[in-house]
Amino acid sequence: MTSLSDLPIRDDLRGREPYGAPQKHVRVELNVNENTHPIPDEVQADVLARLANAVAGANRYPDREFVELRDALAAYLGHGLNRDNLWAANGSNEILQQLLQAFGGPGRTVLGFAPTYSMYPLLASGTGTEWIAGDRDVDFELSAVRAVEWVRRTQPDVVILCSPNNPTGTPLGLDVVEAVYDAAPGIVIVDEAYAEFFPAGEPSAITLLPGRERLVVSRTMSKAFAYAGVRLGYLAADPAIADALRLVRLPYHLSALTQAAALGALAHAPEMLAMVDEIKVQRDRIVAGLGELGFHPYRTWSNFVLFDNVANPREVFDELLAEGIIIREMGIPNSLRVSAGTASETGEFLDAMARYVARHGAGAIVSAEHAPVG
Amino acid sequence: MTSLSDLPIRDDLRGREPYGAPQKHVRVELNVNENTHPIPDEVQADVLARLANAVAGANRYPDREFVELRDALAAYLGHGLNRDNLWAANGSNEILQQLLQAFGGPGRTVLGFAPTYSMYPLLASGTGTEWIAGDRDVDFELSAVRAVEWVRRTQPDVVILCSPNNPTGTPLGLDVVEAVYDAAPGIVIVDEAYAEFFPAGEPSAITLLPGRERLVVSRTMSKAFAYAGVRLGYLAADPAIADALRLVRLPYHLSALTQAAALGALAHAPEMLAMVDEIKVQRDRIVAGLGELGFHPYRTWSNFVLFDNVANPREVFDELLAEGIIIREMGIPNSLRVSAGTASETGEFLDAMARYVARHGAGAIVSAEHAPVG
Repeated sequence: MTSLSDLPIRDDLRGREPYGAPQKHVRVELNVNENTHPIPDEVQADVLARLANAVAGANRYPDREFVELRDALAAYLGHGLNRDNLWAANGSNEILQQLLQAFGGPGRTVLGFAPTYSMYPLLASGTGTEWIAGDRDVDFELSAVRAVEWVRRTQPDVVILCSPNNPTGTPLGLDVVEAVYDAAPGIVIVDEAYAEFFPAGEPSAITLLPGRERLVVSRTMSKAFAYAGVRLGYLAADPAIADALRLVRLPYHLSALTQAAALGALAHAPEMLAMVDEIKVQRDRIVAGLGELGFHPYRTWSNFVLFDNVANPREVFDELLAEGIIIREMGIPNSLRVSAGTASETGEFLDAMARYVARHGAGAIVSAEHAPVG
Repeated sequence: MTSLSDLPIRDDLRGREPYGAPQKHVRVELNVNENTHPIPDEVQADVLARLANAVAGANRYPDREFVELRDALAAYLGHGLNRDNLWAANGSNEILQQLLQAFGGPGRTVLGFAPTYSMYPLLASGTGTEWIAGDRDVDFELSAVRAVEWVRRTQPDVVILCSPNNPTGTPLGLDVVEAVYDAAPGIVIVDEAYAEFFPAGEPSAITLLPGRERLVVSRTMSKAFAYAGVRLGYLAADPAIADALRLVRLPYHLSALTQAAALGALAHAPEMLAMVDEIKVQRDRIVAGLGELGFHPYRTWSNFVLFDNVANPREVFDELLAEGIIIREMGIPNSLRVSAGTASETGEFLDAMARYVARHGAGAIVSAEHAPVG
């Protein structure tokens, strides 16, 4: 049998393992930051009516410029944006890949602040861009001073700021974005995949776009719009950014089905965002509940919580899995990540954690230092 | 206003124009090799039922390994293939992009035989792979001798054989594939986007797969399955090839909608392939009709016809467009390309061409030499 090492693959891929969160199907799935709320029936009906139209015309190529979708995304974001400011792709990973193809690539660098979204270094590698891992302050916070120091020292072609940061949930101040933008020679991407989970009234980096033509704010419909299965990422930026991506995108990269389904959900943004408010309630309940049990939940503006002080993360993971609940180990010592679910899923998780602590007593908790990780 | 040249894009992208066949909507659209037959109603109904399921679960990530779809594609292709031999992506362009990311890239080369599919050099550029344009024999044919000479001389990391060739329609003998495979040091891709339009009984390069672990046969549902809007390309190869692509694909790159829609159409392969037979009849009618008018249609195994001896291609294009019929200029002197449509669309095209020749008389035709283009 032929193995991968028998094939003439690129040297930099040899010995690598594919990205892969485990796709286990259990009763309570809180491991990959999905929105566990199904899409409301009336929204599903509207989406299906639009999909019926798309299927009837599926023999034709889709609108390569997805004009109607860009209009709808601009209307959803507001802030005076219009279709020329918008671009979309199959998930925000493809958005980032296209940005690195246009502004990174061989001989260029991209700076991020670890621990951060694990796809960033993989996207860098896949586009031949050198990944520079900056570090963070205490409790995974990122200050303007530290971020700017990294930018000054490394002069990266692209900076990715994950706001809030995944897998830690850490908020990012707009002062950091402004300072990094002023210091950076190249493109500054703010990855706001979880922006709808910000506390009410907290501004998006979209408010910083006017006059900053190297700034890009990326978003996704996977989380707030409960659309992980649909794969729709998008960005807001100066129109010249979209022009650059037109040079690297595959023609007709967004299927007619994707465009129709996204339009259907955007037409029901208020109903979808009502679910977001409910999820924020559950997230805050997780933070409070884990704190009461003696764990250390980090500050989070997302739909998930990273918590520290876990004496034995693998044991917690296994014992919860035995009860039909899956959460996530992220490779951060003494820590685990859990996504906020429905009220009942969240309750099941917190009850299981309480039983775990009751079973293991003082051995469940370890007091960590929460020092700078860099 | 910021322009593209104000942004720090890669030097190799500066001054480039995005790929773009014009997306004009007129009465008779025969310009982009779409299948102009809409999908039968009963197939649409089945596809929509599957899409309804996918939308109900769209809050979850799709099956990252699209196992059910790989099973269905393997069953469709036959030849003893199974899911491990199959891989799929958003259009065959993404299939080729992933292959070049894994087996091409900076410092590596990809050889094709021009004139050929215009996306190949763009995909090469997008992945940092050097594009080598080989040439062809008289009438755009490609002999094993010429192909092997190019492979020996350039020692490419990847060879792409377009079978039949786009935009010329030219068939490719399996003897060429065998000879190129034996001579090539790297991956050999046979792009069979139009394989279902082969004459009855002509074998696919899939028959050559056993024992050839560097051979890849790519296909698409855009043409035979009338699914250009759905974006589903796929390949058959040794399982190690799919393992290599798992290292470069974006996780969850195939949406739940794409997977469901593809499964729906594959469940109705016989009905869909009945349309293919009808299209082959129309293609042969175009070849005969254009020949009678004094043009030189090239040999074609696809759903389109390239024809030479056109004294003024731009004039033909414009005069047909004025009648609501769009065909395509491919930048090949004295030539135009037309896709086979329904019986009525094909009739409209041939009638319009006859009127054009009647209007312009001897000035419509120019006798070309059909010499080697290399």
